[in-house]
Amino acid sequence: MTTKNQNLNKLFTSDTFADIVRNKLIKTVEDYKKSHPQKEIYMMAWGDTTHPIPAKVVEAIVDAATKLGHQSTYTGYGEFDGNIKLREAIGHNYYKPRGIELQPEEIFVSDGAQSGTFGLQELFGLDNVIALQDPIYPPYLEANLLAGRSKIIYLECQEENNFVPDIPKSKVDVIYLCFPNNPTGGVATKEQLKAFVDYAIHHKSIIIFDAVYSAFITDNNIPRSIYEIEGATECAIEVGSFSKTAGFSGLRLGWSVVPVSLTIESTVAGELTEMFRISQSIRFWGASNLSQAGGIAALSPECQQECQEIVNYYLENARILKEGLSALDLTCFGGTNNPYIWVKGTEGMSSWEVFDELLLKTGIVGIPGSLFGSSGEGFLRLSTLGNREDMEKAMNNLSVKRNYNRT
Amino acid sequence: MTTKNQNLNKLFTSDTFADIVRNKLIKTVEDYKKSHPQKEIYMMAWGDTTHPIPAKVVEAIVDAATKLGHQSTYTGYGEFDGNIKLREAIGHNYYKPRGIELQPEEIFVSDGAQSGTFGLQELFGLDNVIALQDPIYPPYLEANLLAGRSKIIYLECQEENNFVPDIPKSKVDVIYLCFPNNPTGGVATKEQLKAFVDYAIHHKSIIIFDAVYSAFITDNNIPRSIYEIEGATECAIEVGSFSKTAGFSGLRLGWSVVPVSLTIESTVAGELTEMFRISQSIRFWGASNLSQAGGIAALSPECQQECQEIVNYYLENARILKEGLSALDLTCFGGTNNPYIWVKGTEGMSSWEVFDELLLKTGIVGIPGSLFGSSGEGFLRLSTLGNREDMEKAMNNLSVKRNYNRT
Repeated sequence: MTTKNQNLNKLFTSDTFADIVRNKLIKTVEDYKKSHPQKEIYMMAWGDTTHPIPAKVVEAIVDAATKLGHQSTYTGYGEFDGNIKLREAIGHNYYKPRGIELQPEEIFVSDGAQSGTFGLQELFGLDNVIALQDPIYPPYLEANLLAGRSKIIYLECQEENNFVPDIPKSKVDVIYLCFPNNPTGGVATKEQLKAFVDYAIHHKSIIIFDAVYSAFITDNNIPRSIYEIEGATECAIEVGSFSKTAGFSGLRLGWSVVPVSLTIESTVAGELTEMFRISQSIRFWGASNLSQAGGIAALSPECQQECQEIVNYYLENARILKEGLSALDLTCFGGTNNPYIWVKGTEGMSSWEVFDELLLKTGIVGIPGSLFGSSGEGFLRLSTLGNREDMEKAMNNLSVKRNYNRT
Repeated sequence: MTTKNQNLNKLFTSDTFADIVRNKLIKTVEDYKKSHPQKEIYMMAWGDTTHPIPAKVVEAIVDAATKLGHQSTYTGYGEFDGNIKLREAIGHNYYKPRGIELQPEEIFVSDGAQSGTFGLQELFGLDNVIALQDPIYPPYLEANLLAGRSKIIYLECQEENNFVPDIPKSKVDVIYLCFPNNPTGGVATKEQLKAFVDYAIHHKSIIIFDAVYSAFITDNNIPRSIYEIEGATECAIEVGSFSKTAGFSGLRLGWSVVPVSLTIESTVAGELTEMFRISQSIRFWGASNLSQAGGIAALSPECQQECQEIVNYYLENARILKEGLSALDLTCFGGTNNPYIWVKGTEGMSSWEVFDELLLKTGIVGIPGSLFGSSGEGFLRLSTLGNREDMEKAMNNLSVKRNYNRT
């Protein structure tokens, strides 16, 4: 009898993040629109970018596409691991300025951080104890459930610990960390990350570090890469992305670093790197050559400057939004060194109540924090990756109300 | 103790297809170049395209990239399942002309057939008996080994059965079929595919049908889609690609069809389709929007005509190559309705011996058939997706030799 994958089927019968968003969140907003046809909606739910990609990146993509149209410049399949020029650029232009030396062989181009992270869990056995931050970006949990892992513990990220969890009390095998954090808006200091690296080295655990929001860090004391911590190349994998800084969310481009010095008790140096290379060669055939051409351009010093301006644009969005929301007496976390604002409801409010209240009072749509895990209950995530006009309109709307209430 | 994925580690300690190609085939060719610096090499190993993409596709990509550079036309994340316009175009322009009605909800855009197929095996349990053609495109086997499946049987494709296997003698759960076939160059008739569909319906088995070379079929009696066979939507998944026809091998774009009427004993109608949708949403975040814009253009009637001309160009390559090789008294299969030529060595020759002989005599590099499975022993695969100039130079070279031998 042909059987179905029970791990996947369990996700089918439960509610995945994507499904709750689709079936409940979007439906609620649509119902609201119908019953409030005059009201403006300000969509700040998705971590989706709105700022155009740099002109030099467009040029590079146009050039790459044009070359594909001519016999003499046409190219077919690329390397599974990614264009060597892109891997070198990630090493030279992204890591080296931070004092991190990585070889191109340790850097694997992916079609985005989601695919990259999904593939990375495949390196490890199903019996491993996995530690996840709570709240967490849900696909990390779902990837592990889909693979069939059941030993999952949560590291609570709450207001009391500034949304940076303590190191696990017992031994865990694989720890997922995301800093700057989605969804809480938190960041981790060098000392806090060092505690995790020390823990991982001591316990021969692995850290999978999601650094896709690293460009939002403006504070020089906050590490942008786990590899800024001594010893991290022995115990940490890092995931990066072009989505949020260069506007590549629809282009699908990211990378995964699996250092040659990364080992667990049963592997020799280089073995995990080689295992990942093999799994990539089975799983897919590289990221789109157009996106990779864009990625090489995006990492040029000239474009890096422009990417920083994109980041600054979003950070200014965050400042405007936080300032405006303070009028509603809502406590806001994040929004500095991080594109997310983590809005705390007043005492006893559920996340969906915060969601409803903000929607009704301001037209702003966020994602209920409870969708990211039980420690997210009572919070709402707002993305500031939207466009300035929306932020300003939403805030004007708020200020009109405030003035109106005063009279 | 953090453990490694033993299934992946076994692939690391064995030799994957990609590794044998890299470590042995490429090395042999490099050694040959060094020892024969005057000799030309004609690389016909890779199934890699060389013909430029249609001008209208380039235009569509340039337009999409340009739009990403402007605030008012910028778009971020797309749908996990793919751009609805592309899914509709696949239904209307690819399937409907063949009398096949599929809804967009049954068509999932992938970043290429390799990723699509890798994801599809995830629908099924690890206890299923998997039937693979022998020889077979190796990642299909490797994807199942990586997942942890061990019950694998092989359906032999040999000269005696025209490289179309008989239906399995015992009950199997999931059958992979690739027609037009890579690597043997074979094609299956309607009657032969019907036998598999009838078998699958009778046994409640699933067929995963790789149709990525369908555009190479010029004979109207050969089905281009498994769905041309009655009942196939109840038992068959199909994988398609833009790589070979529109020159998208580096752009990474394909699709998977999981019909709503597809069921196994433990599922209701639509369940497998929904399970696949969920797994896609966890595994990746859609194909590149640029590639999808190109794919929509490629499916327009105007571009379809141009794509057919690309296919005809490759088929003419195949004709030239087969004709030329007949001078060497090598038996060639395939090359009609299929871009691959399957060269048979003379009695008792191993695949690597055929490889060496062809390299020494003609400078042509193929892939030893034994790398595709034990039934490929004694054969060599040649790809005719190269450029015309190479084909002609290789054949001129052959004809010079032939004339020289005659004098």
